[in-house]
Amino acid sequence: MDDDVITLLNSGLPADAVLTDPDVVASYAHDMASFSAAGVPVAVVLPRTVEQVQHVMRTATALRVPVVPQGARTGLSGGANAVTGCIVLSLARMDRILEIDPVDRIAVVEPGVVNAVLSRAVGEVGLYYPPDPSSWEQCTIGGNIGTGAGGLCCVKYGVTAEYVLGLDVVLADGRLLTTGRRTAKGVAGYDLTRLFVGSEGTLGVVVRAVVALRPAPPVQLALVAEFPSAAAACRAVCSIMESGHVPSLLELMDGTTIRAVNAMANMGLPESTEALLLAAFDTADPAADLAALGALCSAAGATEVVPAEDAAESELLLQARRLSLTALETLSTATMIDDVCVPRGKLGAMLDGVAEIAEKFDLTIGVCAHAGDGNTHPVVCFDAQDADESRRARESFDEIMALGLALGGTITGEHGVGLLKKDWLARELGPTGVELQRGVKAVFDPLGLLNPGKLF
Amino acid sequence: MDDDVITLLNSGLPADAVLTDPDVVASYAHDMASFSAAGVPVAVVLPRTVEQVQHVMRTATALRVPVVPQGARTGLSGGANAVTGCIVLSLARMDRILEIDPVDRIAVVEPGVVNAVLSRAVGEVGLYYPPDPSSWEQCTIGGNIGTGAGGLCCVKYGVTAEYVLGLDVVLADGRLLTTGRRTAKGVAGYDLTRLFVGSEGTLGVVVRAVVALRPAPPVQLALVAEFPSAAAACRAVCSIMESGHVPSLLELMDGTTIRAVNAMANMGLPESTEALLLAAFDTADPAADLAALGALCSAAGATEVVPAEDAAESELLLQARRLSLTALETLSTATMIDDVCVPRGKLGAMLDGVAEIAEKFDLTIGVCAHAGDGNTHPVVCFDAQDADESRRARESFDEIMALGLALGGTITGEHGVGLLKKDWLARELGPTGVELQRGVKAVFDPLGLLNPGKLF
Repeated sequence: MDDDVITLLNSGLPADAVLTDPDVVASYAHDMASFSAAGVPVAVVLPRTVEQVQHVMRTATALRVPVVPQGARTGLSGGANAVTGCIVLSLARMDRILEIDPVDRIAVVEPGVVNAVLSRAVGEVGLYYPPDPSSWEQCTIGGNIGTGAGGLCCVKYGVTAEYVLGLDVVLADGRLLTTGRRTAKGVAGYDLTRLFVGSEGTLGVVVRAVVALRPAPPVQLALVAEFPSAAAACRAVCSIMESGHVPSLLELMDGTTIRAVNAMANMGLPESTEALLLAAFDTADPAADLAALGALCSAAGATEVVPAEDAAESELLLQARRLSLTALETLSTATMIDDVCVPRGKLGAMLDGVAEIAEKFDLTIGVCAHAGDGNTHPVVCFDAQDADESRRARESFDEIMALGLALGGTITGEHGVGLLKKDWLARELGPTGVELQRGVKAVFDPLGLLNPGKLF
Repeated sequence: MDDDVITLLNSGLPADAVLTDPDVVASYAHDMASFSAAGVPVAVVLPRTVEQVQHVMRTATALRVPVVPQGARTGLSGGANAVTGCIVLSLARMDRILEIDPVDRIAVVEPGVVNAVLSRAVGEVGLYYPPDPSSWEQCTIGGNIGTGAGGLCCVKYGVTAEYVLGLDVVLADGRLLTTGRRTAKGVAGYDLTRLFVGSEGTLGVVVRAVVALRPAPPVQLALVAEFPSAAAACRAVCSIMESGHVPSLLELMDGTTIRAVNAMANMGLPESTEALLLAAFDTADPAADLAALGALCSAAGATEVVPAEDAAESELLLQARRLSLTALETLSTATMIDDVCVPRGKLGAMLDGVAEIAEKFDLTIGVCAHAGDGNTHPVVCFDAQDADESRRARESFDEIMALGLALGGTITGEHGVGLLKKDWLARELGPTGVELQRGVKAVFDPLGLLNPGKLF
């Protein structure tokens, strides 16, 4: 059977597009979610054309073989993990920027284009592709579309979904579907484009995307504000948003994260501070806007507010935030990164609750958050060799999601469901929601070949 | 059979919620699309609660009666037109604003809330609900969601779809589905919320919506620029967008429209001018931005550029645009309003093509356009009593859509498909697209009871 798959794949693909060496194949088995199970693929295919992707899907349909589409495997939910016996379909070699149009403010790209490559290319003509996940130097636009990726910019510029205008998608049976448009507006029929965004490769394989661009904004200017408690920082976030400010970035680091960053990079952050807010504006007068925002931070209890003098100093301030995950990862042998998004007004309750969960399970849990969006990333640190600690880590991770739902939030703001959160998706959606989602899945993939076992 | 429907409806609804008087019922039979067929409903129901809507849908499912959901019937595509034997389900009485939250920047509303009522209510607390269709004083948020409505603001602020975060929907069988969220971000499962936006009541009945709000921007300042040709005005539009400007409004009126507005309202517009551009900024320094935009207009061939001195003068300039449709309607006994959206770079070709079509069919066709979005509204004027002219009107209308598709555009930017464009939807989507759309429809409405005959 495996031989049949490889023979049929090879019949329509160049020799270098089908990888079967067991070590190589194994290296494609999983994304960056530790603790999500991964199976053993039959082969990894690396097509360069739409026709080659169609051949892969026709092969899969003919032989009833599951297919797991992959971008750069930087995902954090196991959404790109292989299932045993599958074809891994990596879109990494379909990496051409086909078009950048400054009048229509769009780019047309293949799915394997790296986010940072697109960002820089459009930047050269004065345009801006906002979505900026932390992995932007590695992750691909196709992967971003699959997970509905976010980033630091979302508080002002929104998420990946808001930038996807049209798609070419190879369906499970190998047919090519074009959805959406390259116009600024359009309401012709159901929005299938948006249905594919965040669908984690379960509905079809994106082979081309029309993405919206914006004019490049002015370089942003940042400030950092130090707080004696997470609650005070969260009060500041509410007050900033309620006052009508539109920062280009509004990030929070809790005390655990601050101390981890200091320990790793000796950045001189005040160790006694229990929360930092980082804010930035890319407006016409960022210094004035920062001054107003800083005053709100002080009123909410900030002990110090330090605005950057210029763009270079702003970048320095943001480095602490960028190091957060890496620094938290040094605290233990393993981490689980959560992605709960709550209404902004509930951010303080969320952070307090996570601190209680950390205490209850006797674990270190650092939180960094896209605070302006209410999108928290509690990072559960644990020793993967310690069975009891691993169990407690998993339980605390689950309690964090339960807390998020109880606060009116969602189990995932930007990382997706994958394997890691599939039990929780059903809790968030309820039985009617799950039934309809399964119904939609069956319309697009009646044989259940595309990324089986993910989402639900 | 009709008696059974009315009896069963009455068993779960207050007496004043079921209308059966033939004249009254007939007045609910159609929206504002002349020339789209409308049938005779059995009854009109006007529920006030979610439970009452559920009762209507349970009745419809039990007796296999079609249901046509309606907002204010200001639609322009026949999407709310009755089919014979149907229950018209008007959401007009579910008109409460349930919540406005300035920290989360959301409003929670019932579907019958009038757009302008919501806009003013959020404006009172410094917030802004951007979507502003021309019918905003009448049309409802539910109707806006059903059609995916746009407006003048879209060039900067986007369309209705971008403001719908979560929905409560009564399904065809009467079950209640909650989709989406009230958080700023969220990617838990397929985006069913977005699937309902623009679905024209064919997938479910929206009974509650969580919509995103923005901080109220500064009052906008406008200018008007006069051009000797539509082509020159379109060159200016391209140049404005290519230069990175983000106007809050960028509208075009062609010569036919200018002369119609003058004839009706004697506004003193220059009759020899073949196109007007109206632009506005709500930025920190709108006068400076308008000066830069005005220079681009002059470079593209504008014969005169007149910036407003203040907000009041800006409003006066915009009145001409607001009168366009009404003025064009005075030119004949009937009009068909098209809604083709093309890539901005093709706007000039679109306007030239429409002029050729008008000449070919010997008809008056005035064009006003949301030029910054490439969204044109060619208005075909004709005498509905004249069979030959009516035929030519319909043919010209179709040729305009064919031209839009040939230019890489869409048959509808913001008005929807309804009855008027259902033949054209299949041409835009292709057979695979239509098959999948029908598949999605069958998941949500397996008996085909919701707004049958619309879209496809």
